[in-house]
Amino acid sequence: MEDPFVIVGGDAAGMSAASKAKREDPELEVVVFEKGDWVSYAACGMPYYIKGTVDQLEDLVAVTPDQFRDKRDVDLRTNHEVVAIDPDTQTVTVETADGERFEQPYGALLVGTGARAIEPPFDGFDLEGVFTLHSMDAAAAVDTYIDEQAPQTAAIVGGGYVGVEMAEALTERGIEVSMFEMLPRTLQPFGEATANVVEDHLREQGVNLYLETAVEGFDGEASVERVALEDDSIETDLVIVGVGVTPNVEIAEEAGIELGPTGAIATDEHGRTSVENVYAAGDCAEATNVVTGEPDHVPLALTANRTGRAIGTTVAGTPTETGGTAGTAIVKAFELGAARTGIIDDERAREAGFEPVSVTIEAPTRPHYYPGAIELTVTLVADRSSGRVLGASLVGRDGAKRIDTVATAVHSGLTVDELENLDLAYAPPFSPVWDPILTAAKVLGGKLESDDEC
Amino acid sequence: MEDPFVIVGGDAAGMSAASKAKREDPELEVVVFEKGDWVSYAACGMPYYIKGTVDQLEDLVAVTPDQFRDKRDVDLRTNHEVVAIDPDTQTVTVETADGERFEQPYGALLVGTGARAIEPPFDGFDLEGVFTLHSMDAAAAVDTYIDEQAPQTAAIVGGGYVGVEMAEALTERGIEVSMFEMLPRTLQPFGEATANVVEDHLREQGVNLYLETAVEGFDGEASVERVALEDDSIETDLVIVGVGVTPNVEIAEEAGIELGPTGAIATDEHGRTSVENVYAAGDCAEATNVVTGEPDHVPLALTANRTGRAIGTTVAGTPTETGGTAGTAIVKAFELGAARTGIIDDERAREAGFEPVSVTIEAPTRPHYYPGAIELTVTLVADRSSGRVLGASLVGRDGAKRIDTVATAVHSGLTVDELENLDLAYAPPFSPVWDPILTAAKVLGGKLESDDEC
Repeated sequence: MEDPFVIVGGDAAGMSAASKAKREDPELEVVVFEKGDWVSYAACGMPYYIKGTVDQLEDLVAVTPDQFRDKRDVDLRTNHEVVAIDPDTQTVTVETADGERFEQPYGALLVGTGARAIEPPFDGFDLEGVFTLHSMDAAAAVDTYIDEQAPQTAAIVGGGYVGVEMAEALTERGIEVSMFEMLPRTLQPFGEATANVVEDHLREQGVNLYLETAVEGFDGEASVERVALEDDSIETDLVIVGVGVTPNVEIAEEAGIELGPTGAIATDEHGRTSVENVYAAGDCAEATNVVTGEPDHVPLALTANRTGRAIGTTVAGTPTETGGTAGTAIVKAFELGAARTGIIDDERAREAGFEPVSVTIEAPTRPHYYPGAIELTVTLVADRSSGRVLGASLVGRDGAKRIDTVATAVHSGLTVDELENLDLAYAPPFSPVWDPILTAAKVLGGKLESDDEC
Repeated sequence: MEDPFVIVGGDAAGMSAASKAKREDPELEVVVFEKGDWVSYAACGMPYYIKGTVDQLEDLVAVTPDQFRDKRDVDLRTNHEVVAIDPDTQTVTVETADGERFEQPYGALLVGTGARAIEPPFDGFDLEGVFTLHSMDAAAAVDTYIDEQAPQTAAIVGGGYVGVEMAEALTERGIEVSMFEMLPRTLQPFGEATANVVEDHLREQGVNLYLETAVEGFDGEASVERVALEDDSIETDLVIVGVGVTPNVEIAEEAGIELGPTGAIATDEHGRTSVENVYAAGDCAEATNVVTGEPDHVPLALTANRTGRAIGTTVAGTPTETGGTAGTAIVKAFELGAARTGIIDDERAREAGFEPVSVTIEAPTRPHYYPGAIELTVTLVADRSSGRVLGASLVGRDGAKRIDTVATAVHSGLTVDELENLDLAYAPPFSPVWDPILTAAKVLGGKLESDDEC
């Protein structure tokens, strides 16, 4: 019998690969090693558990370990950590929670080790009441801490997805939130116009927003009591540090697997690494950006799921491309939805060889006469010479999911004129005649033309 | 001075062309003849006026006649009907409401005469209480009739957009609605799966639905009292006939302007008719279907607006293509949204040279653990040999506007695999990891593959 398909890491990428490989080839032996207890969970749902929208942490689990084992015939071993990969002998070294060690040969290997929260060298990171939020256990710990300690104030370090979602969650729990962001704006990948709208809204919702403010550390006796800034300190009962994630590449790197320019594991169009029979997918791996054609590191759930699924199909015998990423993302910030796709940042666009031109407009999501017409702020970016749509960002109380239209255009390489000419759906309860996306394309098209004449 | 740009008809296509032409070339003289009082109104909003969602009929007017005249410098003449076009002398004959007649020379002419409600030869069509709904005056008349006569029951003839929207509007007004559709299903262009969901919902909402039921006419003394069927008659206090529209092509046809295969005015990619310097746009004209490449007649507002705008730009000196139609449409049916794009109908797909393969799935619009997860029914159609996405139909209480993703894919000529690989936006409040569109693409992709193996 052949050596099995071995998967390192039991979340989105790994379990998608395992399930798909078994479905495609029920005879294939599939072994998954997961170092923790939890598999196949929706990390993106954790803020909504803390907020109280989701009752049980278990609700975030899509498929339980027993279901994987019994219904999908996957040999899933939780509390098993892969500590080394030996590409020469095609084996991995596994360490159990009990301290046992063994070798497991593989026919094909998928590295799906994910990412972990970045922990800057803050003083007092080990104080009680200071948390990151990148595991189910951490989500449970935050929730328990709030229940037991009843914090009145919280400091959120970092104005990214986790920061914004946790600001909403903690406010909902009755906690006064202060948010500290080192950069001049929150939600960096969403561009300035969207960030500005979100920031105004955070303040309206009572969040104390400190932009361009570096946190130096945390003070307190046993538990955290203050956030230390350069010239000041702010009292707090709870700290959430959400300053981004870093890919878990150590075992891959030690095995001689090449990392890419982003620091994540380099992969080809089938998710293969530089080492034969070794694949990588999910938050530890790069994907190809569909706009730039360059490697990108976008640690988001859909890419992990899709890439894992494609690799599962490939390993089961049908070579399948993993598809690229447009970096599409959406985030709820209290009453707002903010979304983005493609390349928005001018500098990044120029690095990729484009000459970015952009507009930001406000347009209603319904006709003026229909109740519930709400302004959506749309930023649309295109390349001057080709007219190609590079990316977009949206923010508003309604309609942020319209980003999918631009994501599809970005994938398809549409120009602004082609975007403007899309036949999108109109009826008064759903949209104005000119969808906000089309209005943005009209305005950007006009700008490209008028610039041509100069 | 050159002869002016003359526009026949002051609604979406005509006024878009007028405004855009003046913006592009403020020196251009633009004359619009509109036979009625109303210009630039949202006909699609009329059911919501009758329903009571929109307070004033005037609210449906986007730009008033005075605004066109004073701010946009358009020579707009309401109550002026163009009764003849003479291409040889490049003049139109105009008749005013007062019975005066005069000739108006044109440099360029846009025929934007719109469409009118089809009036089948029903007995008793002239009874009081029997209405079509294709003008602002008709909407006002229906509203007044309900106010004054307080009908208890209404019969809607036709299960298309108008029928479905009016069923909701009249039910909201406290009227018991019966709907009569000659064909085996409602919302013909939306396909069977969507129609079935809508029909169940209409029944749930108390609509008496008569499918495959031909209406023969209406009986009553002065006002309507009964709908006559083949073997039966149903009492009613009000009748709305909404069995489709027919393009107003008479003056064009008499002037020797060619009609296309659909019976609407044939146009090229710039909206030009067969006659020099004569353009046509809106509900009276054909547009090119982006899937089939063939002429199509899709009398919807966005196409009218866009085509008019493009023609305005062309006439002002910058030749601009009008863009095609994907036949994208969306309609509200009580609590449901139903949407469609592209080619869904098997027969129509085959006529266009495709071999259609389709799936219908139900998928939630949010993750299972997030409140408000609602099933969306997605029908996706592709061509077997090329894998190209031909069209889709969606229906659900939430998320029907996601049709725009498929519309964009249809415009871009994406395959099912490419659709499945789109990086769409995911976060729990907005979508499951796999958007319902992606799930449909996965299932259809699987079907195409498994069929290949046969």
